[in-house]
Amino acid sequence: MEFTHFNEQKRARMVDVSRKSFTERMARAYGEVKLSDEAYRAVKDGKVEKGDVLAVAQVAGIMGAKNTPHIVPMCHPLMIDSVDIRFEFDDERKVIKIISEVKTLARTGVEMEAIVAVSVAAVTIYDMAKAIDKRIEIGSIYLLHKEGGKSGTFDR
Amino acid sequence: MEFTHFNEQKRARMVDVSRKSFTERMARAYGEVKLSDEAYRAVKDGKVEKGDVLAVAQVAGIMGAKNTPHIVPMCHPLMIDSVDIRFEFDDERKVIKIISEVKTLARTGVEMEAIVAVSVAAVTIYDMAKAIDKRIEIGSIYLLHKEGGKSGTFDR
Amino acid sequence: MEFTHFNEQKRARMVDVSRKSFTERMARAYGEVKLSDEAYRAVKDGKVEKGDVLAVAQVAGIMGAKNTPHIVPMCHPLMIDSVDIRFEFDDERKVIKIISEVKTLARTGVEMEAIVAVSVAAVTIYDMAKAIDKRIEIGSIYLLHKEGGKSGTFDR
Amino acid sequence: MEFTHFNEQKRARMVDVSRKSFTERMARAYGEVKLSDEAYRAVKDGKVEKGDVLAVAQVAGIMGAKNTPHIVPMCHPLMIDSVDIRFEFDDERKVIKIISEVKTLARTGVEMEAIVAVSVAAVTIYDMAKAIDKRIEIGSIYLLHKEGGKSGTFDR
Amino acid sequence: MEFTHFNEQKRARMVDVSRKSFTERMARAYGEVKLSDEAYRAVKDGKVEKGDVLAVAQVAGIMGAKNTPHIVPMCHPLMIDSVDIRFEFDDERKVIKIISEVKTLARTGVEMEAIVAVSVAAVTIYDMAKAIDKRIEIGSIYLLHKEGGKSGTFDR
Amino acid sequence: MEFTHFNEQKRARMVDVSRKSFTERMARAYGEVKLSDEAYRAVKDGKVEKGDVLAVAQVAGIMGAKNTPHIVPMCHPLMIDSVDIRFEFDDERKVIKIISEVKTLARTGVEMEAIVAVSVAAVTIYDMAKAIDKRIEIGSIYLLHKEGGKSGTFDR
Repeated sequence: MEFTHFNEQKRARMVDVSRKSFTERMARAYGEVKLSDEAYRAVKDGKVEKGDVLAVAQVAGIMGAKNTPHIVPMCHPLMIDSVDIRFEFDDERKVIKIISEVKTLARTGVEMEAIVAVSVAAVTIYDMAKAIDKRIEIGSIYLLHKEGGKSGTFDR
Repeated sequence: MEFTHFNEQKRARMVDVSRKSFTERMARAYGEVKLSDEAYRAVKDGKVEKGDVLAVAQVAGIMGAKNTPHIVPMCHPLMIDSVDIRFEFDDERKVIKIISEVKTLARTGVEMEAIVAVSVAAVTIYDMAKAIDKRIEIGSIYLLHKEGGKSGTFDR
Repeated sequence: MEFTHFNEQKRARMVDVSRKSFTERMARAYGEVKLSDEAYRAVKDGKVEKGDVLAVAQVAGIMGAKNTPHIVPMCHPLMIDSVDIRFEFDDERKVIKIISEVKTLARTGVEMEAIVAVSVAAVTIYDMAKAIDKRIEIGSIYLLHKEGGKSGTFDR
Repeated sequence: MEFTHFNEQKRARMVDVSRKSFTERMARAYGEVKLSDEAYRAVKDGKVEKGDVLAVAQVAGIMGAKNTPHIVPMCHPLMIDSVDIRFEFDDERKVIKIISEVKTLARTGVEMEAIVAVSVAAVTIYDMAKAIDKRIEIGSIYLLHKEGGKSGTFDR
Repeated sequence: MEFTHFNEQKRARMVDVSRKSFTERMARAYGEVKLSDEAYRAVKDGKVEKGDVLAVAQVAGIMGAKNTPHIVPMCHPLMIDSVDIRFEFDDERKVIKIISEVKTLARTGVEMEAIVAVSVAAVTIYDMAKAIDKRIEIGSIYLLHKEGGKSGTFDR
Repeated sequence: MEFTHFNEQKRARMVDVSRKSFTERMARAYGEVKLSDEAYRAVKDGKVEKGDVLAVAQVAGIMGAKNTPHIVPMCHPLMIDSVDIRFEFDDERKVIKIISEVKTLARTGVEMEAIVAVSVAAVTIYDMAKAIDKRIEIGSIYLLHKEGGKSGTFDR
């Protein structure tokens, strides 16, 4: 058990993946945005209109996934083959659920791209709803699923 | 109560702040990363070394704050005067707490810059510890404090 | 009459605006995307749905405006106060009309930000409709209006 | 006939190309900048000098092509193998013609990279000549040629 | 004498300049690229042509200056008012000398913007001449001059 | 002997590598930062602490390597497999030595990525130590080693 991101000087490095093989890889991540009743209804009702909050969050999340190597210092630049983001409404908890899915053919996985997609979509919802709710909370961001690569399939 | 981010075509817009006055503004945000016992100890012990996980997360969070207008679609580009990030260890819950603080002199606040700083720092901790813990969870990202501007001071 | 973008070595430079005064400035630009009948109808009908083509073009154009100093080499970085983009449908010509509006308080104008907003929105419509029309044409991108600054108001 | 950029929630997605094969691909695009007599002569004469307008537009267009996935929201990040831009002068119409050519080995084409290269070069010419001509018009941006990939060769 | 870039946790921070006053600031930096005889002549002779090496280095250096806050982690984002780069040929030493000059009105200086402009121009010359000289050396990058701000004028 | 970066119009182009084969490639580069006695000691002593200057320079250099195609205009975008940066202290000359190493599988080499990694790390050290030393000098940036690709192995 040791950090793979550190070199022999104990400084951060981009992990060397040059011995790993190219395989098809996929990752799914999850996250939530908790809103006040009022803000929740506003976002949910807005979704039937053309310029709704989630349309902007969708675009932001996809662009965020592509930006991952410039946002997370030790991430490898990858040729992503697909990014998708879906939203679900939890009316009970006034929570918007975000699920991302990213694919690539590469020497390393797209776990971080999926995590960043969800995080950026969540932050964008926050931004667009903050005028009516100052107590928005982003939470429960984690990996749902991962496949491809030597470490095998992971499910949660 | 209505979204300020939409134009009369109900499409997204960058809110017009050209009638607002320049004032000194500040915002603080909070977030958490929940780790396994093993990963928590590894990050915490690593912190006494030079190339530790939190040093990388610190740099990532500060650069993330500056990148806010390119990450969050409707955010205004601002001349940020200061960004700081601090970490605290919650040994009981195996949680790393992240607190950001951002300042500017501008026509609009730095709430989103503070939220993005915390989010990017959290995502970076995730990236660097994921080799030893696949069940890391990022959570409880919210605004702690905000001052300057017409809407006054906010505290949570 | 001479290019203001060149130094005494006849090389490109970012024009020195350090003697100019800060004034409120605004610019509006125009552009068109010409589509086949089929693609035109698809984009127009799509606009009543949540994830429509124009919602993506809107976000892209606004982010493009903020990216102007990194896209156009000699443009000054500015604190933009507002960006808005509107679309109009010309059913006769099967043309989507794009109108952008950008504001700032600065030593130089936002003409290029408005032109880039329109161009990036147009290119994004092209991208999203190209699967059903390989002969899309972007055209008639020009400045509509400009005010603020020493050169006064311009209208077309 | 349907948009390939939307998911089952009718929201925008980056099209999944993970089942497509890697092939050598190439695209050429075209665009024009229409100038006043005075501005046209200034750009054309400038071209014999070292720091001319078109040298800057050339660099901007090439960098723009590489920036395509960060400018056009649903574009895939690609390892571009080549970008070239050429200019032609139409003395009759006072028009600068721009032709771009982009190559890659990838699962998807470089149509958008070629379109963006031309658009950014055109916008840069606009920027550098706008001090002597406020009525510059960018137009006729379209795909000239495309080869590689399942949809075969396209010529216009 | 202590580092101003560290917070009380001894971690890196963006220095807080919110108490400093806005003043007109300027900085000039210097750098050199040492070439083989053959490469030196090629770059120098190329300079009379339109697409020469130095035209590309000029554009790269100016765009680099604007990118400074995204390249250097603790730098403040600034509204730069002017960037210029000049080249001089030292025939004796086969050295291309680079001089940059940057201006702003801000709470902090543009020293780093000037240093980055020179560095990026130098790296670009390296890139474009490396096919004919594998032993190019970049050197002697330092601050030439600085004025504005509390620390006063600096000359070297 | 001729520049490979120019097209038949003698304008800059991104060299066409579409006929070259994919091979494993590696490059190492070197650079130095010369400090005053006082600044040298401050950086060296700082290195035993968590938030030290070199930890920030390390992160900046790695992110810089990934940014190479957006910093150096004619560089190809690549999927980098590894970046590492090491520092050595030359107590006699009060010099911090920087060595970078970059790997990829690509049609072109990572020479420039290695050079940029060193340059950005050096510029970051400059930024963080400039408050205690205005006469810092960056120098001796050159290629140490290169392997993979048709031109074979290079050593210096």
